[in-house]
Amino acid sequence: MIVNPYQHIQEEAYAANMQLPELGLVLFTFGNVSAADRSLGVFAIKPSGVPYKDLSPDKMVIVDFDGKTVQGNLRPSSDTLTHAVLYKHWEKIGGVVHTHSVYGTAWAQAQRDIINYGTTHGDHTTVDIPCAPPMSDEMIAGDYEYQTGFQIMNCLAERGLSYEECEMILVGNHAPFTWGKNADKAVYNSAVLETVAKMATLTEQINPNAPRLKDALIKKHYERKHGPHSYYGQ
Amino acid sequence: MIVNPYQHIQEEAYAANMQLPELGLVLFTFGNVSAADRSLGVFAIKPSGVPYKDLSPDKMVIVDFDGKTVQGNLRPSSDTLTHAVLYKHWEKIGGVVHTHSVYGTAWAQAQRDIINYGTTHGDHTTVDIPCAPPMSDEMIAGDYEYQTGFQIMNCLAERGLSYEECEMILVGNHAPFTWGKNADKAVYNSAVLETVAKMATLTEQINPNAPRLKDALIKKHYERKHGPHSYYGQ
Amino acid sequence: MIVNPYQHIQEEAYAANMQLPELGLVLFTFGNVSAADRSLGVFAIKPSGVPYKDLSPDKMVIVDFDGKTVQGNLRPSSDTLTHAVLYKHWEKIGGVVHTHSVYGTAWAQAQRDIINYGTTHGDHTTVDIPCAPPMSDEMIAGDYEYQTGFQIMNCLAERGLSYEECEMILVGNHAPFTWGKNADKAVYNSAVLETVAKMATLTEQINPNAPRLKDALIKKHYERKHGPHSYYGQ
Amino acid sequence: MIVNPYQHIQEEAYAANMQLPELGLVLFTFGNVSAADRSLGVFAIKPSGVPYKDLSPDKMVIVDFDGKTVQGNLRPSSDTLTHAVLYKHWEKIGGVVHTHSVYGTAWAQAQRDIINYGTTHGDHTTVDIPCAPPMSDEMIAGDYEYQTGFQIMNCLAERGLSYEECEMILVGNHAPFTWGKNADKAVYNSAVLETVAKMATLTEQINPNAPRLKDALIKKHYERKHGPHSYYGQ
Repeated sequence: MIVNPYQHIQEEAYAANMQLPELGLVLFTFGNVSAADRSLGVFAIKPSGVPYKDLSPDKMVIVDFDGKTVQGNLRPSSDTLTHAVLYKHWEKIGGVVHTHSVYGTAWAQAQRDIINYGTTHGDHTTVDIPCAPPMSDEMIAGDYEYQTGFQIMNCLAERGLSYEECEMILVGNHAPFTWGKNADKAVYNSAVLETVAKMATLTEQINPNAPRLKDALIKKHYERKHGPHSYYGQ
Repeated sequence: MIVNPYQHIQEEAYAANMQLPELGLVLFTFGNVSAADRSLGVFAIKPSGVPYKDLSPDKMVIVDFDGKTVQGNLRPSSDTLTHAVLYKHWEKIGGVVHTHSVYGTAWAQAQRDIINYGTTHGDHTTVDIPCAPPMSDEMIAGDYEYQTGFQIMNCLAERGLSYEECEMILVGNHAPFTWGKNADKAVYNSAVLETVAKMATLTEQINPNAPRLKDALIKKHYERKHGPHSYYGQ
Repeated sequence: MIVNPYQHIQEEAYAANMQLPELGLVLFTFGNVSAADRSLGVFAIKPSGVPYKDLSPDKMVIVDFDGKTVQGNLRPSSDTLTHAVLYKHWEKIGGVVHTHSVYGTAWAQAQRDIINYGTTHGDHTTVDIPCAPPMSDEMIAGDYEYQTGFQIMNCLAERGLSYEECEMILVGNHAPFTWGKNADKAVYNSAVLETVAKMATLTEQINPNAPRLKDALIKKHYERKHGPHSYYGQ
Repeated sequence: MIVNPYQHIQEEAYAANMQLPELGLVLFTFGNVSAADRSLGVFAIKPSGVPYKDLSPDKMVIVDFDGKTVQGNLRPSSDTLTHAVLYKHWEKIGGVVHTHSVYGTAWAQAQRDIINYGTTHGDHTTVDIPCAPPMSDEMIAGDYEYQTGFQIMNCLAERGLSYEECEMILVGNHAPFTWGKNADKAVYNSAVLETVAKMATLTEQINPNAPRLKDALIKKHYERKHGPHSYYGQ
């Protein structure tokens, strides 16, 4: 009997990928989730271009943090190298998600940070969700997906943000990426980003001069959920 | 055999909470409903951070009107003190709802009252749905959820409105709260607020100079449903 | 054995009412459909304020063209007199629908005619969908729902339109009404109005100077579906 | 036993038509798909005005590339001649779709090309999705649907585009048409067009000065999916 040492992350990645269509975050195959096992130094990721209805846990491809396929007959997601770069450099994350969700993508195309207009946003991060600029022509012509990972890291660095303070980003001209302690949390963050992006779009339509969330509320709402004295959840 | 004296409001609160995802008013756990029994001086409320699919009537936490937990092993909603304040001061309400529904929240973020543009709005209240200003830094830094209840009451008082004339409000920078004679009516009001907020957004997009609902129609539509000679319903 | 002479229109009205939530045209009970039998001089209409899930054919109330209840224990829709007036004056219609569908209502609140911007609109009527002005205070204070019927008829008359050329209207400050040869066609028209209203909203957002549908296309598309040489359908 | 030589394209056309309501691309019967067999010189197309729930493979009408019905008792889609013209002139296509999807139609009514604002668009075509101008009065008054096919071909020719570079178009005042190597791909293109149209609408709302997709990204994303060294999919 052959033991599959990756079954747990294949199941985690499968379940997380299947949440994307349920949450209305993907059309066809325009999205992918990965789940990592840091002790094994690998992650499981959706195969490229396979419809969600045809997925199963055993089809999740196992890839190491340099982007090399370790197990699996299918080609991994075309965005695999971006996932690999983030896992390699951010040692506390266990899941990464990329979608082309409609409102998040529209803000990425508009090349604007999603402004923190209210507590729905403030419950999840204290800062505006950054929009990284489109990559330079050199980065694009080179190892594109690999460079996308660096573009994300560079943007956070320039804003003075850690990947733990802000688990979401937009890549200009392109679409959102999110991450978290595991695949489930990363998917959760993708849904939050999409909702917050829709609310910000409508807020500006209703009042083009809408003010940002007050500093006192930014502090309060973030601490309710994430501070040392948090009292949200069980 | 142990008798549970709170079963009726746990079941009422459970059923009302389960309506929120069905009506499209919540993402994940971003909302909560409570149901009160005034003779017992308590209300049943959703536990904090528990997904709707994992809820059951016995998980509803029983809390008194000062916000103290009377029965239940789970932590009640982080918004519990806001509910408690409203029950304590408004003696005719039996249900309270808080959501982050998308259009209602966008108006709260825009910090504008939802204008009464038509009979859909006018069937439910004669006035614009007020947007309370964001709280002062002192209120936020203090007992935040408790003060949110007072912010709501103060806003109605400043507008000269009773909680029976207008069963809905926005809290600026934050999101909507609604109430009613029972939990079911409070949920109904949350859905009405969301629909009316969407219609108002579109009305201003289609005609930035759209007029308000005529006074004669405000009077007529409200009396059709709520006046002494009402003729809506059975 | 008691024969119910109205069973056929009760079943027609029931089935047509049940289409409203399926088509996304109503929230709660904010809409009603009636179906007439002209040989009997009566119509069957939804009872007032009864949720769609609790409806059944036998609950449809039978009313004559003067608005008097002929059969049924429930109170008919509060909009019954508007339906009665239209049946009484327009001898070829067999169904009437009133909804508060979101986009149609937003145009009614904006008090603008829905402009004929394309063939989706032009397949159903050659003209802009009229928005009748809000009624005078005298009409509102009088027999309101009865006068709503006359407001609709007067608006068509002022535009020089027959009820056969245009089976849809908006009542300013209020919401849409549609009609047709039977209840099914009237519901179809309500769904068309909502879709056309949404398309017109977006068209103006994408191009504030968007031109109207060309006269030659107005003529062509209407004749494809409705002219003596129509070739749409079986 | 009678052999039906067209069963395979009837089944293909049926399955593809049934995807339109599932993907939210049609209201009622406002859309149609055809599937061709080039060796037989015919295509199967939806019958005109038949609701999707009443369709079955054997109801698909078989038509030749001159628009003449070869098999079937029902009248084919009123847009059949447009399909025929495209099959006749574009020898590598196997499927054609016409819908009145909401965002695509709004851009057609606005008479604007859908601008390539991001990689979601760029994954499918390097160019803006063209909007052909409304036809001349002479073309409309003549053989309208036949001329619609030429209007589409002329528009691509004027832009210097082949039907393989861009498998989607808008017809001004009217709605989208798409095509592809088979019916399934043509439906896929219709869904992509609708999503891209919605994203472009929102992008311009969020930032009226949003820049186009960078040339380097246009090249990169198209080659990822379609170039000789493509690495998307299996």
